[in-house]
Amino acid sequence: MPAYVVGHKIPDSDSICSAIALSYLKNAIGEECVPARLGELSPETLFILDKFGFEQPELKLSYAGESLYIVDHSDRVQGPDDIDDATILGIIDHHKLGDITTSTPLECWIRPVGCTNTIIKMMYDFHGVEIPANIAGAMMCAILSDTVIFKSPTCTTADIKCVEALAEIAGIEDPQALGMEMFKVKSAVEGTPIRDLVLRDFKDFDMSGNKVGIGQLEVIDLAIFDEMKDDLHADLAALKEEGGRHSVMLLLTDIMKEGSEILVVSDDDDLTAKAYGKATTEGRVWIDGIMSRKKQVVPPLQDSFAG
Amino acid sequence: MPAYVVGHKIPDSDSICSAIALSYLKNAIGEECVPARLGELSPETLFILDKFGFEQPELKLSYAGESLYIVDHSDRVQGPDDIDDATILGIIDHHKLGDITTSTPLECWIRPVGCTNTIIKMMYDFHGVEIPANIAGAMMCAILSDTVIFKSPTCTTADIKCVEALAEIAGIEDPQALGMEMFKVKSAVEGTPIRDLVLRDFKDFDMSGNKVGIGQLEVIDLAIFDEMKDDLHADLAALKEEGGRHSVMLLLTDIMKEGSEILVVSDDDDLTAKAYGKATTEGRVWIDGIMSRKKQVVPPLQDSFAG
Repeated sequence: MPAYVVGHKIPDSDSICSAIALSYLKNAIGEECVPARLGELSPETLFILDKFGFEQPELKLSYAGESLYIVDHSDRVQGPDDIDDATILGIIDHHKLGDITTSTPLECWIRPVGCTNTIIKMMYDFHGVEIPANIAGAMMCAILSDTVIFKSPTCTTADIKCVEALAEIAGIEDPQALGMEMFKVKSAVEGTPIRDLVLRDFKDFDMSGNKVGIGQLEVIDLAIFDEMKDDLHADLAALKEEGGRHSVMLLLTDIMKEGSEILVVSDDDDLTAKAYGKATTEGRVWIDGIMSRKKQVVPPLQDSFAG
Repeated sequence: MPAYVVGHKIPDSDSICSAIALSYLKNAIGEECVPARLGELSPETLFILDKFGFEQPELKLSYAGESLYIVDHSDRVQGPDDIDDATILGIIDHHKLGDITTSTPLECWIRPVGCTNTIIKMMYDFHGVEIPANIAGAMMCAILSDTVIFKSPTCTTADIKCVEALAEIAGIEDPQALGMEMFKVKSAVEGTPIRDLVLRDFKDFDMSGNKVGIGQLEVIDLAIFDEMKDDLHADLAALKEEGGRHSVMLLLTDIMKEGSEILVVSDDDDLTAKAYGKATTEGRVWIDGIMSRKKQVVPPLQDSFAG
């Protein structure tokens, strides 16, 4: 029976490309693995799969009785709902350590780098397995996506070197140009239902017992949201109620201006003032330099809930 | 300010040798680190430190405001009491994934192998840092201890290969003979206060909300305990009350006969029958083949608590 490799709910490019890349590696070393996904793919991820000739991983929500590798998360709320009834063989991740626990020893490769695929490249190197060109291409795109083409504060030297090495394997001369092409696909929001936009890259967190949902949209120019903000705000309020959340935030990140406007609906009017030192006006606040949910948005928020 | 490297409470040889070996590696790559310990050392660990010329790591119980690497555990109950007020930079471990969480990304090297030091050897290789002979010797002894000279079911090919490589670096011709010498030191229990024996290698676990303490003594011949079992049993009962524990178990492991007698004091008379299919008689039961707390004792017990 094969093991599954699965990323987080509302999968992003890193979750999907990690699942594909890790499955190939595990198969190469004699451990049968199949990539899977917990939800629908974003236009960006579809662009990557199409460009490098991959099918979508199997949509699989239930893992009871199965064995699996978890990629790109270690928080229970982001993983399969029935994860307690599965055997976790390993976790490959680059986030804070979440609340997933196991009853048996496992394999964890967790590093403070910009992208899970940077770690999977280390695993290929450790096992001495050659990376096929199309897998290298997909891994490279995931790193360019997660690091916002090296602009995110989460980006490390390891990520940049990894992209260089993968670009060579994939035969791609200008990785950053491909990155911009990818972000243009990501920036196309016209015609997309509001709820789909809000959920495109949305994660729930448990913060001292409070459920907090944080979405992020990274685009080349925030102006595309100008006509949409009231609708986005209304949908955040709905999403907060539906999920019994304490707060919902949506980061509208301008990757060229290198900052984010945060839309907030919260039980606590002072949420952003406490966490980031900047209050909202009509539920909105622009903060210069904020590019990373993981590194800049979640930790101060978690600290402010904790104490 | 240096970071600390610290193993679990009631430190064993793996926790101490890991702290020393990882600190050296981190210093070698420019990250200032100091080994520390959460308690007194066992005769076995003192034997290793003496043999390879190391001082005892600093006894340090409080880490508030400090940064630290956690080795040989990932369960909160086994770590520093004020770990919530510290910054965890990384975890190197070979146990099931415990309930430690962080608010920022970190470095985790967790592998299903027999000993933390086997993983630390991988880290030296990854960074291309040469292991000094005395550190190699201490790492090797920790692996021989944790794998019960390769007899434990937790022992993997990686552990055996690692001992071979470390023995060569340390210039030790017969690692297994050194292992037996070490276990003879470990087997010397005469004159040791009962409580010291019970706590020599004792770990608390949270099992579905119940505190369960499990100690283990590995010796060359169980006969040395013949006159002691009533006293041990009485002390387990006292320990159970003092700590508000649901159960306390002490594994008396015969490394030559390759099995363990388990002494049990529990709120549940059927504890071992449920978990291991074998009931106790007067709070004692011998189980053939049980050598490993981590692999053979904890998981079935945890499952039986989970329901």
